[in-house]
Amino acid sequence: MKKIAVLTAGGDCPGLNAVLRAVVKTAINDYGISVLGIKDGYWGLVENEMQHLSFEKVSGILTLGGTILGTSNKADPFRFPVKKKGKITYEDLSDKAIENCRKRGIEALICIGGDGTLTVANKLIQKGLKIVGVPKTIDNDLSGTDVTFGFDTAVANATEAIDKIHTTAMSHHRVLVIETMGRYAGWIALTSGVAGGGDIILIPEIPYDIKKICERVKERGRRGKRFSIIIVAEGARPKDGDIVVSRIVEGSPEPIRLGGIGQKIGQEIEKRTGIETRVAVLGHLQRGGTPTAFDRILATRYGTHSVHLLKQGKFGHMVALKGQRITSIPISQAIKKLKLVPLNHPLIQAARSVGTSFGD
Amino acid sequence: MKKIAVLTAGGDCPGLNAVLRAVVKTAINDYGISVLGIKDGYWGLVENEMQHLSFEKVSGILTLGGTILGTSNKADPFRFPVKKKGKITYEDLSDKAIENCRKRGIEALICIGGDGTLTVANKLIQKGLKIVGVPKTIDNDLSGTDVTFGFDTAVANATEAIDKIHTTAMSHHRVLVIETMGRYAGWIALTSGVAGGGDIILIPEIPYDIKKICERVKERGRRGKRFSIIIVAEGARPKDGDIVVSRIVEGSPEPIRLGGIGQKIGQEIEKRTGIETRVAVLGHLQRGGTPTAFDRILATRYGTHSVHLLKQGKFGHMVALKGQRITSIPISQAIKKLKLVPLNHPLIQAARSVGTSFGD
Amino acid sequence: MKKIAVLTAGGDCPGLNAVLRAVVKTAINDYGISVLGIKDGYWGLVENEMQHLSFEKVSGILTLGGTILGTSNKADPFRFPVKKKGKITYEDLSDKAIENCRKRGIEALICIGGDGTLTVANKLIQKGLKIVGVPKTIDNDLSGTDVTFGFDTAVANATEAIDKIHTTAMSHHRVLVIETMGRYAGWIALTSGVAGGGDIILIPEIPYDIKKICERVKERGRRGKRFSIIIVAEGARPKDGDIVVSRIVEGSPEPIRLGGIGQKIGQEIEKRTGIETRVAVLGHLQRGGTPTAFDRILATRYGTHSVHLLKQGKFGHMVALKGQRITSIPISQAIKKLKLVPLNHPLIQAARSVGTSFGD
Amino acid sequence: MKKIAVLTAGGDCPGLNAVLRAVVKTAINDYGISVLGIKDGYWGLVENEMQHLSFEKVSGILTLGGTILGTSNKADPFRFPVKKKGKITYEDLSDKAIENCRKRGIEALICIGGDGTLTVANKLIQKGLKIVGVPKTIDNDLSGTDVTFGFDTAVANATEAIDKIHTTAMSHHRVLVIETMGRYAGWIALTSGVAGGGDIILIPEIPYDIKKICERVKERGRRGKRFSIIIVAEGARPKDGDIVVSRIVEGSPEPIRLGGIGQKIGQEIEKRTGIETRVAVLGHLQRGGTPTAFDRILATRYGTHSVHLLKQGKFGHMVALKGQRITSIPISQAIKKLKLVPLNHPLIQAARSVGTSFGD
Repeated sequence: MKKIAVLTAGGDCPGLNAVLRAVVKTAINDYGISVLGIKDGYWGLVENEMQHLSFEKVSGILTLGGTILGTSNKADPFRFPVKKKGKITYEDLSDKAIENCRKRGIEALICIGGDGTLTVANKLIQKGLKIVGVPKTIDNDLSGTDVTFGFDTAVANATEAIDKIHTTAMSHHRVLVIETMGRYAGWIALTSGVAGGGDIILIPEIPYDIKKICERVKERGRRGKRFSIIIVAEGARPKDGDIVVSRIVEGSPEPIRLGGIGQKIGQEIEKRTGIETRVAVLGHLQRGGTPTAFDRILATRYGTHSVHLLKQGKFGHMVALKGQRITSIPISQAIKKLKLVPLNHPLIQAARSVGTSFGD
Repeated sequence: MKKIAVLTAGGDCPGLNAVLRAVVKTAINDYGISVLGIKDGYWGLVENEMQHLSFEKVSGILTLGGTILGTSNKADPFRFPVKKKGKITYEDLSDKAIENCRKRGIEALICIGGDGTLTVANKLIQKGLKIVGVPKTIDNDLSGTDVTFGFDTAVANATEAIDKIHTTAMSHHRVLVIETMGRYAGWIALTSGVAGGGDIILIPEIPYDIKKICERVKERGRRGKRFSIIIVAEGARPKDGDIVVSRIVEGSPEPIRLGGIGQKIGQEIEKRTGIETRVAVLGHLQRGGTPTAFDRILATRYGTHSVHLLKQGKFGHMVALKGQRITSIPISQAIKKLKLVPLNHPLIQAARSVGTSFGD
Repeated sequence: MKKIAVLTAGGDCPGLNAVLRAVVKTAINDYGISVLGIKDGYWGLVENEMQHLSFEKVSGILTLGGTILGTSNKADPFRFPVKKKGKITYEDLSDKAIENCRKRGIEALICIGGDGTLTVANKLIQKGLKIVGVPKTIDNDLSGTDVTFGFDTAVANATEAIDKIHTTAMSHHRVLVIETMGRYAGWIALTSGVAGGGDIILIPEIPYDIKKICERVKERGRRGKRFSIIIVAEGARPKDGDIVVSRIVEGSPEPIRLGGIGQKIGQEIEKRTGIETRVAVLGHLQRGGTPTAFDRILATRYGTHSVHLLKQGKFGHMVALKGQRITSIPISQAIKKLKLVPLNHPLIQAARSVGTSFGD
Repeated sequence: MKKIAVLTAGGDCPGLNAVLRAVVKTAINDYGISVLGIKDGYWGLVENEMQHLSFEKVSGILTLGGTILGTSNKADPFRFPVKKKGKITYEDLSDKAIENCRKRGIEALICIGGDGTLTVANKLIQKGLKIVGVPKTIDNDLSGTDVTFGFDTAVANATEAIDKIHTTAMSHHRVLVIETMGRYAGWIALTSGVAGGGDIILIPEIPYDIKKICERVKERGRRGKRFSIIIVAEGARPKDGDIVVSRIVEGSPEPIRLGGIGQKIGQEIEKRTGIETRVAVLGHLQRGGTPTAFDRILATRYGTHSVHLLKQGKFGHMVALKGQRITSIPISQAIKKLKLVPLNHPLIQAARSVGTSFGD
């Protein structure tokens, strides 16, 4: 193997650059393979926008958030947006993508991304490309791996925010609602909520009862606690309802965040209890900043291992963490279903033991 | 002088505890005066809720955000909310407040607060109470002092948030709108915006033109910059409009933040330019966390100086920073008008020199 | 079970307070058991210094470093230091310790500590006390558990320090040597070294060759890299020598840190290469500050689980992390041997792949 | 004016990159002047190592510590080290430096540096170069300007370190000695010491009495305070002695830091009081990391203003902060004497009021 290429697709995630650095250094140091960086995910694969990644290019990026390659959400080669006469139509340009690889002498690809990215990778594999995957989801909801990089940083960012809000909450008689990421799985809300000492934590997996929440807030008041901190995953939902708060914008896989569920719950609590309520939507703050040491380590290990997998010919596999070991599993198996928080997860039990309510 | 009391009123602010610590330690160390802490601002003065502040009580609070005394917004002794038969009426209980001081042997008061708090203090002075003021506003919009404590921490928090969002912005083709505090004055948005390298900064003092903003965003795109960072003070407003976004809640001096102006501008930009836009409302994150070294120093100096002022009999004055010196000015003079950002402020000029637009 | 007691012994560690909070809350919430806090480790057990830990006492301590109970290193009840006529002699006061428990109605103990603490606990168990252990070592070198709390925070602190030093190193032509904790095991140096992108990492498990180190520094210079970052565990040692740098102070289990090995290596490199060298000894900075989210979670889980173990009668066991699960193992088994970094540990392999040298 | 050049010399300092960014952006935006960056301070001026600084080159460096140009300490053009036959001799190469400027069409220079750098600049001015200075000293000891950039970051870093050490100190019965920068002036120790709530602060301006220090430590013990935090500037010295701890390395303007005075004081206290003592030498940690918002603002204002000064022909001047205004003063006037902490400085008085001892 002489030349490979790497791309990052989907939402950005702390640790992406650490993976890229590890891929390039390992490829050169261990195997003398040169690496091309593809611009903006699959977009650059179709549009043939790539550049050589030298040692120099990946030097000093270990601590950097985001991705130096850029990324994109809407550039599926099998349904690629093409502007014609001011209108966008979607075409299958996967052959062009594959042809670009052939012409440039790219023998294999490393695709770093989430569910969507890996699904596309799988289809490209079926058309003959040699691909190894690196899982990426800040929400930690990918089955097949214990943890994904970026999650620890998101939890650290969210916890720091909760800590900050805690100090101001204690000075007032107030309810503070903090909305975290997590549309389908409550990992970030649960983990940062327990780490931040949240009084109530609402996650998609445990539908909440607004009456229980208000009861809890009032009961805290009776015990002399002037404030309550409520952590809400953006995908949290009430027991009885089918309320969908996030508005899906046409053509976008990501709903624009309107401070949806947090705002809604805050207003409801204020109305029902008469206690002043403030809402904070953490949003993009969670995926920003320098990755934690944990994420840099995990991302570095993923990066080096993905090159080893390529060299071993384990195409169609993605790297995964099992306990303390990096291993690999078939991509097809990983993308089958979301990893939700099990209702009997030990952290939920521990949280209940220290007095946290889940609004159920 | 044997006994004084201290209260913190209005919104909480990083550095309040540092002031309290300095007041207590200076009173005891320098003058052998004992200090009572009044609970929840003027509320505790009326309700006679106070406790002795020993060395022990203020030990270890220097680094703590918020205020150990608690605070309140709606407890003006001259218009005190009283619940009668389930309805709230407002009564003048200032005599009761003064009587509480007399009974407890409190010879003088230190009132730490903003505009509203100091206005009330001034009225209590006219009724015979001996009071020294310590100015507090996270927005830095109090005339009479160069800087107020809490402001540096708010700027640090906002700048850190901008830094975090910067890294994720760079990976996408996006506009990021970040809404900071600052209802009337743009100090936080201006300072954190320049410190965070914002491309466009919108402050109440410089009404914006949405067309200029969109032009700027597009022009950056033409120069190869894929993203734009826009810092918006919550009180920013368009040139031609009289749009008031924040909703004022009955009886509250503070509007509930609905992610107003930031959200509005974000949607407008997305509509006009077609570029994906994300909005972050920093809200209470800005006033949270441990105070910066600068604020701890300033708060400590304010605290010690306020006790010296009491001892010198300079009642009716508040402490103030002038250049590197702590001095004092009459409260009446300080609360006369807001300190807005002058249009020719050197920081605005410097910002323009490095290419920042103010949307004008 | 009506009443239990808890103590923290040995060096302090971020997360101790999180364990205490979880112990108290779980005991009260789940079982109605009341908890006594023992002052300064085994010292308070012998001297009968304890206090009731209410909800109030453990409120707000989750984010606090250190331990609210205090700790001590030199208070082994079986060899307790007693001052007589100005001279210190050592006596077996274990019976007194046990008698104190009996008198106060303490039915069981939770002992939080490292190797030394758990060894003492084991001896007390043999004398009839009912004890459950919670492992604590910032160095992560305790066998029987995958990770110990405090380690993630130490790594985060060390990594942050390396990051800071990195920026200044890049501006000069210099070698920067950073000494971390780790007298016997290199976990902190290895993990923070990889996370911080260290060029050379020296750990006790891999004796170094100073010539190899200097070669590496010079080779970097030839490739245009003006600086080198070297992470050294305090227990690192040369291949050929038996140099012991740390001086053991009489009666203390901890050597006073004299900036030993880091200083020594720095001077040697400067002498051999002629390149300016600077040394930073991180020392106590590593165990300070607020625990990371990871450590708060782990500590909370340890705390709740230790109470469950007591209730289940699993005396003589300590809590342990295995993969994602909290489990328990016999204390006697855990303290048998140190958990050193295996030479084929995947992180060492990954580090070599990205070009890190171990000086071997 | 069409072309100017800029250099950074002396020790690195947080904010240098912010100055460079502001210089380049202002030169291009406001005046259409192009800017060359000189490598490694005066070294590049003599060796003719320079590169064009485009917008692109200074993009994203605002938050970066260190300097992208590199710096050097030992490259005085008037006494330039030249290696001949393996021996270093010193030659006056100032004519060569000036000739390099002439050949490249450099019309004026901006020299960013401390005392030494500005002294050299002054000599080059006398030989006909047009130069404007930007003062840089992390120690804040330059007369002629109220504050220098980098100082606020150094104080923030030192304060954060003190905070971290505080939490671990509180769990033990110990004295913690923390050595900060400040060879001649005690600004960093004083400011971070007050901000961090240090019990004793030792600065060069106030010679200490070791007996007073020990008395204070013991007196705290009697009041039930188990620990004491002592902040020591590296240039602190005893009342009666002429002890110089730092060893000056031949040819280096900077002594190698051997953990000198902090270590010495720590050992003395341990010997005299019998209380365990730990020492932390902060060293290069203080100048590392991302600059604070305050320093970014100050550096940006310095950078823009220095270009304006060039354009106005105010050669031989350096920018300076007076109160809230940026102004300029003759370089010759600024480098005349060090700005020491006055013994009656208000911060010293405030520190004494809150109970801080200066060991005098």
